[in-house]
Amino acid sequence: MPIATSALLTDLYQFTMLQAYHAEGMNEPAVFELFSRRLPPERGFLLAAGLEQALDFLENLRFTAAELDWLTDCGRFSPEFVAAFEHFHFTGRVDALPEGTAFFANEPVLRVIAPLSQAQLVESRLINLIHFQTLIASKAARCVLAAPNTLLVDFGMRRAHGAEAALLAARANYLAGFAGSATVLAGMQFGIPLFGTMAHSLIQAHDREEEAFERFAAAQPGNVTLLIDTYDTEAAARKLVNLAPRLQQRGIVIKGVRIDSGDLAEHARQVRRILDEGGLSDVTILGSGDLDEHRIAELLALGAPFNGFGIGTRLDASTDVPTLDMVYKLQEYAGRPRRKRSEGKATWPGRKQVYRRIAEDGTFISDCLGLADQPQPGEPLLQPVMRDGKRLAPPESLAEIRARVQQQLAALPPALRANQTEPYPVEIAPGLQELAAQLDRETH
Amino acid sequence: MPIATSALLTDLYQFTMLQAYHAEGMNEPAVFELFSRRLPPERGFLLAAGLEQALDFLENLRFTAAELDWLTDCGRFSPEFVAAFEHFHFTGRVDALPEGTAFFANEPVLRVIAPLSQAQLVESRLINLIHFQTLIASKAARCVLAAPNTLLVDFGMRRAHGAEAALLAARANYLAGFAGSATVLAGMQFGIPLFGTMAHSLIQAHDREEEAFERFAAAQPGNVTLLIDTYDTEAAARKLVNLAPRLQQRGIVIKGVRIDSGDLAEHARQVRRILDEGGLSDVTILGSGDLDEHRIAELLALGAPFNGFGIGTRLDASTDVPTLDMVYKLQEYAGRPRRKRSEGKATWPGRKQVYRRIAEDGTFISDCLGLADQPQPGEPLLQPVMRDGKRLAPPESLAEIRARVQQQLAALPPALRANQTEPYPVEIAPGLQELAAQLDRETH
Repeated sequence: MPIATSALLTDLYQFTMLQAYHAEGMNEPAVFELFSRRLPPERGFLLAAGLEQALDFLENLRFTAAELDWLTDCGRFSPEFVAAFEHFHFTGRVDALPEGTAFFANEPVLRVIAPLSQAQLVESRLINLIHFQTLIASKAARCVLAAPNTLLVDFGMRRAHGAEAALLAARANYLAGFAGSATVLAGMQFGIPLFGTMAHSLIQAHDREEEAFERFAAAQPGNVTLLIDTYDTEAAARKLVNLAPRLQQRGIVIKGVRIDSGDLAEHARQVRRILDEGGLSDVTILGSGDLDEHRIAELLALGAPFNGFGIGTRLDASTDVPTLDMVYKLQEYAGRPRRKRSEGKATWPGRKQVYRRIAEDGTFISDCLGLADQPQPGEPLLQPVMRDGKRLAPPESLAEIRARVQQQLAALPPALRANQTEPYPVEIAPGLQELAAQLDRETH
Repeated sequence: MPIATSALLTDLYQFTMLQAYHAEGMNEPAVFELFSRRLPPERGFLLAAGLEQALDFLENLRFTAAELDWLTDCGRFSPEFVAAFEHFHFTGRVDALPEGTAFFANEPVLRVIAPLSQAQLVESRLINLIHFQTLIASKAARCVLAAPNTLLVDFGMRRAHGAEAALLAARANYLAGFAGSATVLAGMQFGIPLFGTMAHSLIQAHDREEEAFERFAAAQPGNVTLLIDTYDTEAAARKLVNLAPRLQQRGIVIKGVRIDSGDLAEHARQVRRILDEGGLSDVTILGSGDLDEHRIAELLALGAPFNGFGIGTRLDASTDVPTLDMVYKLQEYAGRPRRKRSEGKATWPGRKQVYRRIAEDGTFISDCLGLADQPQPGEPLLQPVMRDGKRLAPPESLAEIRARVQQQLAALPPALRANQTEPYPVEIAPGLQELAAQLDRETH
């Protein structure tokens, strides 16, 4: 299932505006930046993700004959305007934060410089792609920070918002440090490690729970995790202890159990005791059921003996913060900086760069948002990734991005690393403040 | 962009269980029901949606050669087990609530009866499809109830969770009574009416706001809506009044303005006054910017003179309730009812039907959840839609479903129609209660 690159994955007003630009002959270079205007109170940092799919979209953006026909037939556009899309392709340049980079309010994740019509048309899908994976990677990173030495698995496909969301969530979770996903197609498509246990229906389809355990185990002797909460969790753990010697004689080793309901901490303690007393201290315990970073931190603080967690709904829809205030704004047109001044929604004009000051031990101290041509102290974060519509390098491997995330999370200030949401200092460079003030005086 | 029907859009544990069933030769008919265990406190009812895509998925479900190779190569499954999928197709029967039907906790939206392996494999994607559109249609219905005589348009593509979410949200919103969407591909794919205005970037790309207005209007003389909050909302309305006579001479009529920031109610009042005094009383005012049913109700209660609203982020990600507790549970296997008893997650066993008691004036009185073979007073809601893996009728048109929604919303009890979340009575039939008690005595 390829990630969709249809040129009609956009808002109608993009075409409406393009028609005006076409009529006016306005197609000078435009600079748009994609950024988050503010972080929600529940997030202390965001992790950039989705660049790979965004670049793929830009490289493969074409109008099919059927799409051109539809545009002509919809009655809104002149045939001559539609005909201009026949050989449309994206020829612009893109600078971006490498995937897995931590970033903060007002910092561009991605900058597009292209003829106005191209840069405008791609707005909706670029936000759609970068917003979603950034949202999910940022949530997943909080889970990773809450449970640093624990196996975390994405169980969220069924309540992700559609198939693309499920696949891209699996990718974003894996980038952020998850061990893998249950979503099979994500395994095939992205090479993400897959994990899976069994559902309650398997237990229910058998007349007796023991029988279900034994037969399921026999069918995949190498990798058995049993779900033990269908009827009575502790009773199921005891059944497993009784069953284990017989399975061992057949060469079948139970790897783990999963608990999905009730008082998870208490059940895990009881089950651990029953398993240990029954000689099954190598059997791991996986928790699941409405988990998120808060619930996991609670369980671990209670000393609940979980070896891993399956996290679904609250992760793949990022239920506490299901959207970010992410926008794509015109910052320069035809060589002149531009500024939107709408109440509460003013933006910083011009081509910008993020300069990050980093302590000797690697910890992030503060960022400075400045103009790209007025370097500030610190490491510049936006990197060139596309020129003339072509990627400058092959896609990064997921392993590279995972390594970057690990390094970034370790470098966060201690409060952010502890999942507190203390504001991180982002200074606006004096040159940028001056430019904004100057535009405010000029524009009317 | 077809809605994905890959057989690998599922959770790994489905294959793991299928391998056990395969080894055991367990493939008797299984009955699964898809339902919501509880309604969130923010929702008084849900609207069933997504059936069309679910049936399409079931009818077209096949394994590609590449998918079969991947399953073989992943090292988890025996070649003989994988080979059995070569000619896999869904042969089961489906009963469902027609799209647009209002429903409540524990009421099946859809029932699958199929050989166990088929019914199990499709779980993840069936929930994924029905959950999302139901989620969005239910949120959109609340917007429709809050603003009954107002033009409502879906502006949410950019912050929907991926492309499929954007397309299916456009469909769900339209079913629920929205006038249309801004998402272009949804227009091409589903025939949904499209709406669009302009972005701030168009204003910013011009040196003067008046110039942007005039040129934009000239490029689409039939259908002009101008965005007036880029710099100063009231000043922009006055510019429009000055501009209108010149445009009229050229045969260009301004249809509407859009306000996207600041104190929307106050701006709308001021703008209405300026437009009316300037002889532009036919120009409509569209509001947008972080709107939902609550904000719209507030604006209308304040008498803000809006003719329509563009609703985006809070709708297409249903931000107050981004997921529903929707599950797909085994209720019968090989002719015997089954019941999951996990703490807090017990289900009602057997093949069920929803019987709705309706007053003479059409208002819903109460529902009764009973066994399908023990009819109760009231109208049975689940309808046969698929037999032997084939649809029983061609897809319903969106117009038919929209008409059903209108009828259903009008028939809701007054509190639900007023967007209050008073509990709606769903009685459990005595025969169903007895069956559950009997299974609890037998299962261990």
